[in-house]
Amino acid sequence: MTQSGFRGQLRETVLGIAQRIVEAEGFEAAQARRIAREAECSVGSLYNVFGDIDGLILALNARTLGLLGEALAAAIAEAGDASLRQRLEALALCYLRFAEANHGRWAAVFRHRRAPGRDMPQSYLEDQAKLLALIEREIAPRLQDKGLCNLAARALFGSIHGIVTLAMDDRMGGTAQNDYAAQIRYIVGIAEKGLSTA
Amino acid sequence: MTQSGFRGQLRETVLGIAQRIVEAEGFEAAQARRIAREAECSVGSLYNVFGDIDGLILALNARTLGLLGEALAAAIAEAGDASLRQRLEALALCYLRFAEANHGRWAAVFRHRRAPGRDMPQSYLEDQAKLLALIEREIAPRLQDKGLCNLAARALFGSIHGIVTLAMDDRMGGTAQNDYAAQIRYIVGIAEKGLSTA
Repeated sequence: MTQSGFRGQLRETVLGIAQRIVEAEGFEAAQARRIAREAECSVGSLYNVFGDIDGLILALNARTLGLLGEALAAAIAEAGDASLRQRLEALALCYLRFAEANHGRWAAVFRHRRAPGRDMPQSYLEDQAKLLALIEREIAPRLQDKGLCNLAARALFGSIHGIVTLAMDDRMGGTAQNDYAAQIRYIVGIAEKGLSTA
Repeated sequence: MTQSGFRGQLRETVLGIAQRIVEAEGFEAAQARRIAREAECSVGSLYNVFGDIDGLILALNARTLGLLGEALAAAIAEAGDASLRQRLEALALCYLRFAEANHGRWAAVFRHRRAPGRDMPQSYLEDQAKLLALIEREIAPRLQDKGLCNLAARALFGSIHGIVTLAMDDRMGGTAQNDYAAQIRYIVGIAEKGLSTA
């Protein structure tokens, strides 16, 4: 959604400030008053563009999912005509690296809690579907049934997401570092073998 | 750790109150002053037993991990001499059901952030290791290498944990309900096939 004029410019400025704060200090630190002060606008103007602070975080999250999509597309392009296992591994390890490199923004996507009873916006679900489609495209030749292909893509994403989530917790927490990349390679490896005989 | 006398009794009372609050309102609602008031003790007495509020949450989390361990052991016992796939599925679905039935306490284990720079207590890592051992015991006959068996158990746990995490987010959020149990059965199924040929 591009918007011209003052409103569009304010939108960009505010998202840039929010992104910097979220990345440096976490999404809990992205408070409307602080962002408005840094953007040299009123809290009212900020709410006028984003609805409320949740709306601002959701807009930032949409941008993060877009960036993640670009990173994943680049990883899969780089993998070229490698085996399915290698291509799935490239996607999964790219996701781990993305979360490590953009920890604050990644956490905002998955840890930010919407106000109770507030649904995910439709555009968000579409962003999610686009990312799932990257996996579906890879495994579709093995799984002709469309419903099964979607289930498998969701299950694979959830699996890698779980390992990445534990990796990020560890990074923040300080328990012994496990080799999460090795765990990802392992699960991709055994899952791909299973896929081929499913 | 059982403690006799007043201190042990206070510990039990406080943990019971904290458990009720965490389950009903989330761990963010477990504030020292409120718990002390309900336990009819001073905040000082509470800190004397648990160190600080983080220490109290960690004690509650240790208890939750103990309960989870009992639930998993019961699930695997009930599965009897079923196939490896069915036994792993029983463990994984038990984990999903446990998180659903004890959502507040489950979230406290995985979402509570320790104060920066504060390590996980050793007992916590031992609790984790006990749960991982439940998976290792199942897959050990297929994976003679002890290091690989541990890696596989961690990778499998992370995978199921990821799907459970997304399921819990969904429950709290309100997007369309996906069939997470089906995703779990699917990933266990393909992973187990892969295991057998690893």
